[in-house]
Amino acid sequence: MRFLTAGESHGPCLTAIIEGFPAGIKISIDEINKELEKRQRTYGRGERMKIEKDEVEILSGVRGGYTLGSPITLRIINKDWENWKKVMNITGEIIADPITIPRPGHADLAGALKYYSEDIRNVLERASARETAIRVAIGTFTKILLKEFNIETLSYTESIGGIEDKFENLSWNEIKERVESSSLRWVNKETEKEVEILINKTIDEKDTIGGTFVVLVKNVPPGVGSYVHWDRRLDGLLAQAIISIPSVKGVEIGEAFLTSRKKGSEVLDSFIEENGKIRRKTNYMGGIEGGVSNGEDIFIRGIVKPIPTLRRPLLSFDFKEKKIKESFYERSDICVVPAICIIAESMVSWVIASEFLKKFSGDHIYEIKRNYENYKRYLEERLWKKSE
Amino acid sequence: MRFLTAGESHGPCLTAIIEGFPAGIKISIDEINKELEKRQRTYGRGERMKIEKDEVEILSGVRGGYTLGSPITLRIINKDWENWKKVMNITGEIIADPITIPRPGHADLAGALKYYSEDIRNVLERASARETAIRVAIGTFTKILLKEFNIETLSYTESIGGIEDKFENLSWNEIKERVESSSLRWVNKETEKEVEILINKTIDEKDTIGGTFVVLVKNVPPGVGSYVHWDRRLDGLLAQAIISIPSVKGVEIGEAFLTSRKKGSEVLDSFIEENGKIRRKTNYMGGIEGGVSNGEDIFIRGIVKPIPTLRRPLLSFDFKEKKIKESFYERSDICVVPAICIIAESMVSWVIASEFLKKFSGDHIYEIKRNYENYKRYLEERLWKKSE
Amino acid sequence: MRFLTAGESHGPCLTAIIEGFPAGIKISIDEINKELEKRQRTYGRGERMKIEKDEVEILSGVRGGYTLGSPITLRIINKDWENWKKVMNITGEIIADPITIPRPGHADLAGALKYYSEDIRNVLERASARETAIRVAIGTFTKILLKEFNIETLSYTESIGGIEDKFENLSWNEIKERVESSSLRWVNKETEKEVEILINKTIDEKDTIGGTFVVLVKNVPPGVGSYVHWDRRLDGLLAQAIISIPSVKGVEIGEAFLTSRKKGSEVLDSFIEENGKIRRKTNYMGGIEGGVSNGEDIFIRGIVKPIPTLRRPLLSFDFKEKKIKESFYERSDICVVPAICIIAESMVSWVIASEFLKKFSGDHIYEIKRNYENYKRYLEERLWKKSE
Amino acid sequence: MRFLTAGESHGPCLTAIIEGFPAGIKISIDEINKELEKRQRTYGRGERMKIEKDEVEILSGVRGGYTLGSPITLRIINKDWENWKKVMNITGEIIADPITIPRPGHADLAGALKYYSEDIRNVLERASARETAIRVAIGTFTKILLKEFNIETLSYTESIGGIEDKFENLSWNEIKERVESSSLRWVNKETEKEVEILINKTIDEKDTIGGTFVVLVKNVPPGVGSYVHWDRRLDGLLAQAIISIPSVKGVEIGEAFLTSRKKGSEVLDSFIEENGKIRRKTNYMGGIEGGVSNGEDIFIRGIVKPIPTLRRPLLSFDFKEKKIKESFYERSDICVVPAICIIAESMVSWVIASEFLKKFSGDHIYEIKRNYENYKRYLEERLWKKSE
Repeated sequence: MRFLTAGESHGPCLTAIIEGFPAGIKISIDEINKELEKRQRTYGRGERMKIEKDEVEILSGVRGGYTLGSPITLRIINKDWENWKKVMNITGEIIADPITIPRPGHADLAGALKYYSEDIRNVLERASARETAIRVAIGTFTKILLKEFNIETLSYTESIGGIEDKFENLSWNEIKERVESSSLRWVNKETEKEVEILINKTIDEKDTIGGTFVVLVKNVPPGVGSYVHWDRRLDGLLAQAIISIPSVKGVEIGEAFLTSRKKGSEVLDSFIEENGKIRRKTNYMGGIEGGVSNGEDIFIRGIVKPIPTLRRPLLSFDFKEKKIKESFYERSDICVVPAICIIAESMVSWVIASEFLKKFSGDHIYEIKRNYENYKRYLEERLWKKSE
Repeated sequence: MRFLTAGESHGPCLTAIIEGFPAGIKISIDEINKELEKRQRTYGRGERMKIEKDEVEILSGVRGGYTLGSPITLRIINKDWENWKKVMNITGEIIADPITIPRPGHADLAGALKYYSEDIRNVLERASARETAIRVAIGTFTKILLKEFNIETLSYTESIGGIEDKFENLSWNEIKERVESSSLRWVNKETEKEVEILINKTIDEKDTIGGTFVVLVKNVPPGVGSYVHWDRRLDGLLAQAIISIPSVKGVEIGEAFLTSRKKGSEVLDSFIEENGKIRRKTNYMGGIEGGVSNGEDIFIRGIVKPIPTLRRPLLSFDFKEKKIKESFYERSDICVVPAICIIAESMVSWVIASEFLKKFSGDHIYEIKRNYENYKRYLEERLWKKSE
Repeated sequence: MRFLTAGESHGPCLTAIIEGFPAGIKISIDEINKELEKRQRTYGRGERMKIEKDEVEILSGVRGGYTLGSPITLRIINKDWENWKKVMNITGEIIADPITIPRPGHADLAGALKYYSEDIRNVLERASARETAIRVAIGTFTKILLKEFNIETLSYTESIGGIEDKFENLSWNEIKERVESSSLRWVNKETEKEVEILINKTIDEKDTIGGTFVVLVKNVPPGVGSYVHWDRRLDGLLAQAIISIPSVKGVEIGEAFLTSRKKGSEVLDSFIEENGKIRRKTNYMGGIEGGVSNGEDIFIRGIVKPIPTLRRPLLSFDFKEKKIKESFYERSDICVVPAICIIAESMVSWVIASEFLKKFSGDHIYEIKRNYENYKRYLEERLWKKSE
Repeated sequence: MRFLTAGESHGPCLTAIIEGFPAGIKISIDEINKELEKRQRTYGRGERMKIEKDEVEILSGVRGGYTLGSPITLRIINKDWENWKKVMNITGEIIADPITIPRPGHADLAGALKYYSEDIRNVLERASARETAIRVAIGTFTKILLKEFNIETLSYTESIGGIEDKFENLSWNEIKERVESSSLRWVNKETEKEVEILINKTIDEKDTIGGTFVVLVKNVPPGVGSYVHWDRRLDGLLAQAIISIPSVKGVEIGEAFLTSRKKGSEVLDSFIEENGKIRRKTNYMGGIEGGVSNGEDIFIRGIVKPIPTLRRPLLSFDFKEKKIKESFYERSDICVVPAICIIAESMVSWVIASEFLKKFSGDHIYEIKRNYENYKRYLEERLWKKSE
């Protein structure tokens, strides 16, 4: 399975092609649009999110509601394109001044140098996090696929600007319920208000703010990923996918930082027997051992810097005039952690689904299910005691 | 550029093939062996490190001391192979009892299930961190390549078991000097003793301990990696490479965690002018913006769990007898953070060199240098003021 | 550089994304549309070609007429989509009987089995050669890129149904001129009429006919492709690209078949000196030696079977009813050799451009040109005698 | 599944690493060595073949005679290495004059230019067909894998120097028997002598000679490869693999050239019923339709040029002195068609096995067999009439 995405932030549309997605899977446009909306309607997004409600179109690879096995084309139209036609004219003349003052924290300078660009717009349009909208659409395809095997993802904001989202002893469903009803994807009802206040204050200060988030995946069978070669390790693949999300600068699999300060004996996920079934007492390793899923919930933490587009002028320099100058302001968000949760769920679903398919293969969902069910039966034989 | 590695921990040898390495680069076996030794001779390694001194052999791709452009074969012979011949017999009969009790924290269980193995040795031999020795040899090839462009790496232990290696205002060379003379790769002379005591105590307790480390890369030009597609982002590629090292469970690019608790305005790496040259005031972003190197030092932090192989029996279960049992003990290390520094430098060098070659290309070092020098001249024209 | 294509034959559109195409290249929509037209307006195409005139849209990756370095989205709308909406309904109900009688010569049966499909339309829509239209659009991008380096392709029909297109001592431009004014891409004016008669007779017989074609590439510098690893050989990459075109079942690089019947001494492309420059006396090897371009014209021959979609019913079997039955008729062409010429030129351009960029690299055309010009100067120094 | 090979023709050894080969497959060193011998002991090979009998060593990935799922290291030692140590000194000084006269027909010139080499030995050592020995070892691993599914390959020489190996109505086993007892892999006993005479005459003339060969694969199930994307077509993948063999300049899938001169109606592989089973009347398509295996025997023809290393001096030029000169003589073969048969069988096995595993997946042979058996049962249900 592979995909490519394309599209500038203010171009006519975002496009993606997914190649290798199996046949026979029922696709719901609504489910994809719901995820797109979740990404947009979080607390702390900028004005643009109010302009547009992203909606996906499927242009190939699906017929009569089911995937065909052939490449899937996805498109999200830019509803604001009319207003940008002159600035972003594709084959005709551009009517807009070039941008020559790079903003720190963005690809502006490095990108303009790399691509020999005299106009930073040529860089920022693609370097923009707008591109993650189509990644959410792609990821939702893999979410739908994983759901056929009862594999589910869940994400929540773990901290914003230093305020932590503390909770204990909540079940998967309890977390899910709270998160889906919070525009901050915040679990703890008591501290939620506190965060809103912090965000509002940050808006007033024309500043931005970061945080951390968690993605969980349940029901991944043991044996996804592999230790046999470095580039097949599931944790490495997940780390790349998470860090590839704009503004994410760190990732942990399981309680990495915590365990780095403990003794080995304190953080071993020992085996226990539970009703004739082998389980773990704890899950410090985040469901991955030796680069392979071990059957426990996969736990991934992402670390998000505050986005660098402030709503006030910054000192930068003009690479045309070669002197220090104030940088321009391109509209943007205040806090993107809750939105990134959704993007991260999508990227994680992509990685898990890709690796899952490498093990269970098959060109049609029926075939994959057959292979998977056989594997599950084998697991039971090996891991469960026969009931006498 | 691509590579494959092979070899079991107690098999006859580790082997690697590097394909796509440019021609004309002078190779020093000593330099590679020195890196191998650095990986081995750190404080906290187990007994095995005393048995063997790894030495690399080059079996192809080099002639008269210079690379040919053809694939490079590297081999590290297992000096202890004679003692393992019966257990690890390749085509003949195995004389050894199968291991059926998986150790938590290792690929043992997930691997045995995935590969339908009745003997955990079939898993642990390859899942072992022994494989990283050959990665160091590979990485050193890319270090040598990068050195031709003045690009250098540096690594140090940042914390062990919660004790932090604090220092301030030290230059690259000062850090390098201290680190290379410390078997812990520890910078701060005062706290070093404290860590040694902690490690010794951990040995006595038959326990293990983790920590964090830092890899720095200097002189990477702006423009390595790309924002145009998620899987070309330099930070994502580095994150995968770092997390692929056994025991590493987390990675940060720049001061990720720190910035996640700050305001955007506090952690912007603003532009300043310095002698007609544009530089940054700070480097919170760790030298990568929008997935592209920006010319500042690349800063990567890795987070290491305590290794899970304790020197005392653990509660586990026997998957043959299907009951809870004590697990076996496979010899191992106490604290691997300093050793991982060296592996991480190698993996980082690989990634940087691969992406560097994508930009500057060329089949011979002479050609790559020519392309690179031209790019540097162009950078100067764009970024430096002409002296009048 | 990589690309993905998507789209069913009667779906709303064909889409492609090209990733890794360099920045700074002036793109002409007309040039692409001209190639699309050449593919369509050849003698022997079926009715569909009269319905539609393919036109490409660019939806990303180009701004103000120049490529940006970011992914390029191409789309060719199906002008007949309105008539197919019910049959090819994407997420709604399909109003059409399933096709259950596979046609020999197509992917129909193998595809329906592989993808567990009960309706052969799910297969034939993507297995259709319609998809090659977007490959021509992609290929034209690389043609435009190659033209910046004076590298050009030329294709002609070499035989149809056993009639050979014989000619001698014609220059590149003479061949080009003749071919571009012939709807058969036939060089020899005398035999052209003969072929037309054969095609018309074949139409009357409701039959189809195949042939052979040639693609030439000039000005590829020596050193593109590599002998160092089997999958980097330029001839192998070209062979895959050519055989991947529907109906092409054979490929030769240079005069393969001819040389296979000769002695080595008769078919050596000996070196000669020509005005202080080293050249070859002949070009039996087709411009590639040891998997590497040698500076001579690259010569590729493709062998095309008659397309298997006859205009009369065929004996097949119904896999639903499990009995021998007449197959259905899906509209199609009579002779596709001239059209395949254009597709082959596109695929060859893609391969050459991809491998060219691996050697000369660069993110912007300016950078690639600089690298290339330096290489050319070096070649001159090594291959040319200094004029005294 | 992927592999890398390494090694110069006169270096210490050839090495390969196979990554992704499934676990649980019984490996026989003898079977691999038998294939290596077949490659060497054919009529028309040069002197070197008499010096050395290639033997493979396995250095990883196999334990107790069974594959582990971890990377497999293969090595073939160069028994003549002692005599080449000074010429091919790896890290020490080279004691040999540089070769500066390129031979036409080899990578010599293009390679020396590409890699900026002053000594053609740096090129020819890797560009040599010696490297195919290790490809045979790799391919035999996949042959052993395929045999578990009853998939077998067969190869024979079809023509040498224009003399054709004609035969009719021979079964697979009859062809196999004849071929394996002929050092020319020639089927027709009557013309075999004629070919030997031609080869002997060619030896006397210090010339070389080419030909054509055929590889057949039986019992590949329908559904291997795919039509959904150009680079997944089985015929394209096979074409690349075949043309990547040194001296092979053309490839046909099925009777490409023959069908290119016929009408569609004459060369359709119509469906017929045979004992309630659906079969084909003919197999012009060579077992692949739309890029997908259709269940018939896969038929591949390769076209081999005469090797360019004549045993007499050739006119070439000296790129150091920049004047026309006689080229040197590097020992070589007279006719390599029978040897290439074995290499081609190996490469074909690799491709078929790789694509087979994409469909049937699994990490252990047991798992793959289970998936495959289920698919076969499904095929029977769809293609076979129930016996009443």
